[in-house]
Amino acid sequence: MKTAIYGYGNLGKGVEAACLQNPDIELTGVFTRRNPESITTRTGVPVYAASDIAAHAADIDVLIICGGSATDLPEMTPALAKSFCVVDSFDHHAKIPEHFANVDAAAKEGGNLALISCGWDPGLFSLNRLLASSVLPEGKDYTFWGRGVSQGHSDAVRRIEGVLDARQYTIPVEEAMEAARSGKNAELSTRQKHTRYCYVVAEEGADRERITREIVTMPDYFADYDTTVEFISMEEMQANHSGLPHGGVVIRNGCTGIEREHREVIEFSLTLDSNPEFTSSVLVAYARAVYRMHQRGRCGCLTIFDVAPADISPMTPEEIRRTML
Amino acid sequence: MKTAIYGYGNLGKGVEAACLQNPDIELTGVFTRRNPESITTRTGVPVYAASDIAAHAADIDVLIICGGSATDLPEMTPALAKSFCVVDSFDHHAKIPEHFANVDAAAKEGGNLALISCGWDPGLFSLNRLLASSVLPEGKDYTFWGRGVSQGHSDAVRRIEGVLDARQYTIPVEEAMEAARSGKNAELSTRQKHTRYCYVVAEEGADRERITREIVTMPDYFADYDTTVEFISMEEMQANHSGLPHGGVVIRNGCTGIEREHREVIEFSLTLDSNPEFTSSVLVAYARAVYRMHQRGRCGCLTIFDVAPADISPMTPEEIRRTML
Repeated sequence: MKTAIYGYGNLGKGVEAACLQNPDIELTGVFTRRNPESITTRTGVPVYAASDIAAHAADIDVLIICGGSATDLPEMTPALAKSFCVVDSFDHHAKIPEHFANVDAAAKEGGNLALISCGWDPGLFSLNRLLASSVLPEGKDYTFWGRGVSQGHSDAVRRIEGVLDARQYTIPVEEAMEAARSGKNAELSTRQKHTRYCYVVAEEGADRERITREIVTMPDYFADYDTTVEFISMEEMQANHSGLPHGGVVIRNGCTGIEREHREVIEFSLTLDSNPEFTSSVLVAYARAVYRMHQRGRCGCLTIFDVAPADISPMTPEEIRRTML
Repeated sequence: MKTAIYGYGNLGKGVEAACLQNPDIELTGVFTRRNPESITTRTGVPVYAASDIAAHAADIDVLIICGGSATDLPEMTPALAKSFCVVDSFDHHAKIPEHFANVDAAAKEGGNLALISCGWDPGLFSLNRLLASSVLPEGKDYTFWGRGVSQGHSDAVRRIEGVLDARQYTIPVEEAMEAARSGKNAELSTRQKHTRYCYVVAEEGADRERITREIVTMPDYFADYDTTVEFISMEEMQANHSGLPHGGVVIRNGCTGIEREHREVIEFSLTLDSNPEFTSSVLVAYARAVYRMHQRGRCGCLTIFDVAPADISPMTPEEIRRTML
């Protein structure tokens, strides 16, 4: 199958790398809204202007859209789904139903198949929440994120006056994870589940107390959490905080038995050196499923819940049953 | 949907309990090869003779077959799949391709849909091996089992002369799990991954040294492991080892990035008070999927790899997307 990347940021670069590990998937091009000549891909795959994509339709079985969820994807995915089978990683949880409806209509109009909100959360974490709650209907779900860099929170700190650079780590609270596992059906507040840690490079002479106060009281982002702010030098930021690690865990704690007398715990966790590269790896595996399902005549919009796991594997059904079951 | 249980051992009793937690699934009967009058179900559901099952076909959308893998299921599942949609938990990994072919032919002959080898291993563990290896093609899989009771190993010890009762726990080696997570792509031998611990009640005057020697040198079961044997009283056995706890973990350790420079770890684990009740809970959730897929016209044999996760949930696709994605 032939695939192409739409948008060449961290996620697009991750897709490029992931394609190297999937010999059945040929990456035929990168499409960008920037000047194509300003970009050199890491594997030498050609770069084209986004506006020229229609001319390359024969080389694209599935297009992997690597834009941002805030403003890019709500426009891009429906527009492109009219002409291509697509995969995106739309992660604004509250707006998923609206995005799904828009993409579904566009994909059906074009006779294409689209998969939205793919990655790890939404994505593999969602899949595990669904599996675990279906297997253990009487129980409780917990999702913890981190330790990892939240790009949205890092950006929010960077917008504060006097801040040159910032990196925000989300850290799950060990005691809260133990409570979730222990099966006491603990109700855990936002503050109990995660703490936030900010590394900040401030301008010379900036008022550090004001910066700290603006961070820890910022509504939505920090006010509901215990937040620690540490000022560091630009050198230290570059040396120790240039990566994008992340991860987390989904825990389902349920009961079985006539008297609900037995406790069963299902846990799915990720420990990631590179959040965008891992997300990209999920996108590429699910692009394979979109290709196969479209070949079988499926159109419209899907999520990870609609994909039979066999369809994401490069192996045949016989091989999977023989080696993995 | 209406379901029935075929075989009323630990697994069948677990299915009975699981149906209580799934209001959309009505349990209409238990079928047994024993004398039906000798059995009283825990929820009062009626018991019928296995030989009378054809008369109850109108009350069975999906039949959950709760026989043993060694001799029951290879015969039972193909025979019953001719007349019913069925789910089984066939767990003899090496014989799955043969069982699949037999059940597939029988189900197609009858226009039915069958799902085999459902549970946790094979089952949810298999699903996670497939997901993780598809997302991280360059990496390594590790499966650890335990701490939990292996019924096959317990039975093997019970067959030794002078043994009144026995319980065998499979215990994963903590250092081996750490090596798997650490990403050194460690090659771990059978002996390095698990130890075995046997609690044995011996006859009065029995030769404990001989019993111990026969256990630890038993080919296939114990010879390749470090095994500890502890003799206990019948009272202690009944007080402390009457449960059937189990669990385990599937770890995938892979790399991403152009230079394979980033390490990503995916982990799925289970901690179960009751192995048979949890397995039953998986069977019931997947019975729902079999019902729905058969309603859509699907026939033949499936495994857990062929089921879109949305089909095991009692919720509508809209609810799932809104609440779980």
